[in-house]
Amino acid sequence: MALPSKVKIVEVGPCDGLRNEKQSVPTATKVELIRRLGDAGLKSIEATAFVSPREAPQMADAAKVMAKIERREGVGYPVLVTNMQGFEAALAAGAKEIAVLGAASEAFSRKNIDCSIAESLERFRPVVAAAKEADINVRGYVSCVLGCPWQGEVKPTTVAEVAWALFDMGCYEVSLGDTIGTGTPEATKAMIEAVAKRMPLKKIAGHFHDTYGMAIANIYAALQLGVSVFDASVGGLGGCPYAAGASGNVATEDVVWLLEGLGLKSGLDLAKLVDAAGWISQELGREPQSKVARALLAKGTAALAA
Amino acid sequence: MALPSKVKIVEVGPCDGLRNEKQSVPTATKVELIRRLGDAGLKSIEATAFVSPREAPQMADAAKVMAKIERREGVGYPVLVTNMQGFEAALAAGAKEIAVLGAASEAFSRKNIDCSIAESLERFRPVVAAAKEADINVRGYVSCVLGCPWQGEVKPTTVAEVAWALFDMGCYEVSLGDTIGTGTPEATKAMIEAVAKRMPLKKIAGHFHDTYGMAIANIYAALQLGVSVFDASVGGLGGCPYAAGASGNVATEDVVWLLEGLGLKSGLDLAKLVDAAGWISQELGREPQSKVARALLAKGTAALAA
Repeated sequence: MALPSKVKIVEVGPCDGLRNEKQSVPTATKVELIRRLGDAGLKSIEATAFVSPREAPQMADAAKVMAKIERREGVGYPVLVTNMQGFEAALAAGAKEIAVLGAASEAFSRKNIDCSIAESLERFRPVVAAAKEADINVRGYVSCVLGCPWQGEVKPTTVAEVAWALFDMGCYEVSLGDTIGTGTPEATKAMIEAVAKRMPLKKIAGHFHDTYGMAIANIYAALQLGVSVFDASVGGLGGCPYAAGASGNVATEDVVWLLEGLGLKSGLDLAKLVDAAGWISQELGREPQSKVARALLAKGTAALAA
Repeated sequence: MALPSKVKIVEVGPCDGLRNEKQSVPTATKVELIRRLGDAGLKSIEATAFVSPREAPQMADAAKVMAKIERREGVGYPVLVTNMQGFEAALAAGAKEIAVLGAASEAFSRKNIDCSIAESLERFRPVVAAAKEADINVRGYVSCVLGCPWQGEVKPTTVAEVAWALFDMGCYEVSLGDTIGTGTPEATKAMIEAVAKRMPLKKIAGHFHDTYGMAIANIYAALQLGVSVFDASVGGLGGCPYAAGASGNVATEDVVWLLEGLGLKSGLDLAKLVDAAGWISQELGREPQSKVARALLAKGTAALAA
């Protein structure tokens, strides 16, 4: 199996990352983070979420963020929405791409959005239709693809059904998320193979959390199957809501280190990413979660001190 | 390529780990760490190093450690030696297994032990011969197998030559170390394939550092080639001497999480390993480097607090 020659990274730090950080982040900081990420070469930057402030207090300034970011040519700034109300607010704020989030676990769906998987998909249907009508692209997410904090095991065939439903509804790409980070490489492969039986492999993205240190190995496993789009979060922004103090999203810099080592093109500037990771981590008053950022920043400091 | 069904972990925390920790660790703490590691099921625990205290001040109490550890049946306690003097001290302290460390980088060898690779191998020859005479097993290490902090690139053929020399000299196993942690999975495979052309694959062990977050992916790559022995350090003990503040040895718990996810038997008790990681990290006054330990300890704390 050949690895893909080119890989796209979807940066989720400003939304999926920051929404899981404890402290409040000023709008200007979010805007500057998005600017730095664009400057590092990212072509898709999940900017914010139009959801109820009760659900995601960090994202209450969504409209302000969208009004203030500098929009680079060729760069997409998708925003997360969960219903028609959110979609309309996103549209009003000038969003050109949205994302919707389904779960592959009934227990997770019930606990998090108080409805079944089937009901959540029905809720997205008019949103996706309205987006199409407004010429807005829609990306789909499936959470809990390798395990659920409430029900434990999640079947690959269930993941495949939900992914297919989102694709069939009109999502141009479906990102498969190991929300709790418990997945390992062979389970990752089995899950992706199940999904690829229902929808085209090149429309599948991988979204791995590094809670148990497995994300890079899982990405390598997915690359071995030909998956060529991965979500990542600069500096590993976003902790794990199911284990406070543990890490969540895989860090963009770590993914880029892997890709460069494998000789795969990502079009990203590693030094700028590491700078952005160092900067936003400092803004949050903590160290980057990323091993690459820590190692390179430590070497930089050592070099400066020498 | 089938993964091996059974994997052996060689625990290097008490030696390779602690010797790279900044603060001094009391002998009693080392002895207790080794006891806990044996209790978690480890069958090979690198206990200490008989080297000059100038070289490794943390290991100055080597003879005391060897005198005080409880030796479990079926468990090996290898110790690192660098010359005849060290070997004799190890022998006097009752060591039943030793390890010698060669480099695959000329620049690293010169910088670290002030001699060429060839000279270092000649220095080991009488040590290995004397060990054989005394019925002491010898394990070989090769450092810098995927890159060197001083010379950069290291050729797989050079790694293969040094590994072969150690094997040919009488080492029962040769552990290939990515000392600076810059390696990625395909480079790992190419390097191991080169070594396996010179010596039996089942005599090859992998020793990966997680400085850039690649260790688990590299281990997965090595497993795909059939490598079935890996070195690891509980709690990720041992920072990276080439980037202060960055991490070094891959954590034993993280490797076990990978193996369990892959359905491979290691014979280790993950809960006891995580407890040992939490305990020794507390003794060192810091958090475990291991993502698995952090996640599981955080969940435990959260559960207790709830």
